[in-house]
Amino acid sequence: MRVILASASPRRKELLKKLFTDFEVVCATGSETYTASRPSDIVQELSRQKAEEVERRLFGACGTKENPYPDYLILGADTVVTCNGRILGKPDDELQATQMLKMLAGTTHQVYTGVALAISSKGKRQSITFAECTNVRFYPMTDKEIAAYVHSGEPMDKAGGYGLQGIGGRFVQTIEGDYQNVIGLPVAKLYQVFQKIEEIALPF
Amino acid sequence: MRVILASASPRRKELLKKLFTDFEVVCATGSETYTASRPSDIVQELSRQKAEEVERRLFGACGTKENPYPDYLILGADTVVTCNGRILGKPDDELQATQMLKMLAGTTHQVYTGVALAISSKGKRQSITFAECTNVRFYPMTDKEIAAYVHSGEPMDKAGGYGLQGIGGRFVQTIEGDYQNVIGLPVAKLYQVFQKIEEIALPF
Repeated sequence: MRVILASASPRRKELLKKLFTDFEVVCATGSETYTASRPSDIVQELSRQKAEEVERRLFGACGTKENPYPDYLILGADTVVTCNGRILGKPDDELQATQMLKMLAGTTHQVYTGVALAISSKGKRQSITFAECTNVRFYPMTDKEIAAYVHSGEPMDKAGGYGLQGIGGRFVQTIEGDYQNVIGLPVAKLYQVFQKIEEIALPF
Repeated sequence: MRVILASASPRRKELLKKLFTDFEVVCATGSETYTASRPSDIVQELSRQKAEEVERRLFGACGTKENPYPDYLILGADTVVTCNGRILGKPDDELQATQMLKMLAGTTHQVYTGVALAISSKGKRQSITFAECTNVRFYPMTDKEIAAYVHSGEPMDKAGGYGLQGIGGRFVQTIEGDYQNVIGLPVAKLYQVFQKIEEIALPF
């Protein structure tokens, strides 16, 4: 079975190595727009878009009797941060990263990661989506600390403007939940889901 | 100021990079024995032993008027896992790793990491020790999963017989606290402590 990660995030690639030894990365293209309003629905909608876009592109010509679907697993994922009811994606620029970090400092926020699986096996296709939430509490931060962290460049390509696995980890007082979910993939939940899908055989 | 990590753990080395760009690693030698009984005291006692052993070895001949102490920061650390009142260090063999994982599966345990700092600056020497605790909840595990995980070799050099940052992360349902503490160094607390020590200037 071909395993395909439909995400450009190098962090998700690293995390998926905890489950599969061998998989491909095919980045989803197209703009990210959503109609849902609840964070857990938004990340599932966006992750489904990614998985389905890659599926259409790679296997769109399949599905006929002459050319049936091959066996594959496509995994899309999306992460957003919510703080006091506001949804934070990736910052557009340093000013926005600074504003996000000022919101997060000294308080608790939520990180939602949605996962969408498109599974095709023996001509049968199924979809599974779920979302996982982790609470993250930041220590208070001074303006100087925020400015230095933004200047490091780390916040720029990350939802909420920080990287738990990087220098950002020094500001995180506690997390409550799966820390891998904060980095971009709820590995433990995903492993549990895979245990219930007989088509998926993990290499270990 | 020379910064010296008195620990052989490659994971601590990676975590310390979140605070310092430039430091040395000098492994402490000697057996690990303790007299304390509470986990938070045990890890502080053991981390102090590591820091002081390296300090004696490198700077033992200093401390006189002719040869005063140079400027340095030595960091020792030690991690233990406790589960239902039992203290788990690194497993001696696969059987012990299996027994540890059977204890942890489906329940919550505590990870304690102690940190000892020996700081010498401008002829003044100070010691600081502290411990941090993180709760970790494991999903239930089948005997087959435990056997496969032990067979992977990952549990063998790790307190409690698992690596959160490795394949072990798939079994961890939630953590409550600093996830970096579970891997071997409470980076966030350590950063906060450094902010209060005027002799320590972090590179960023």
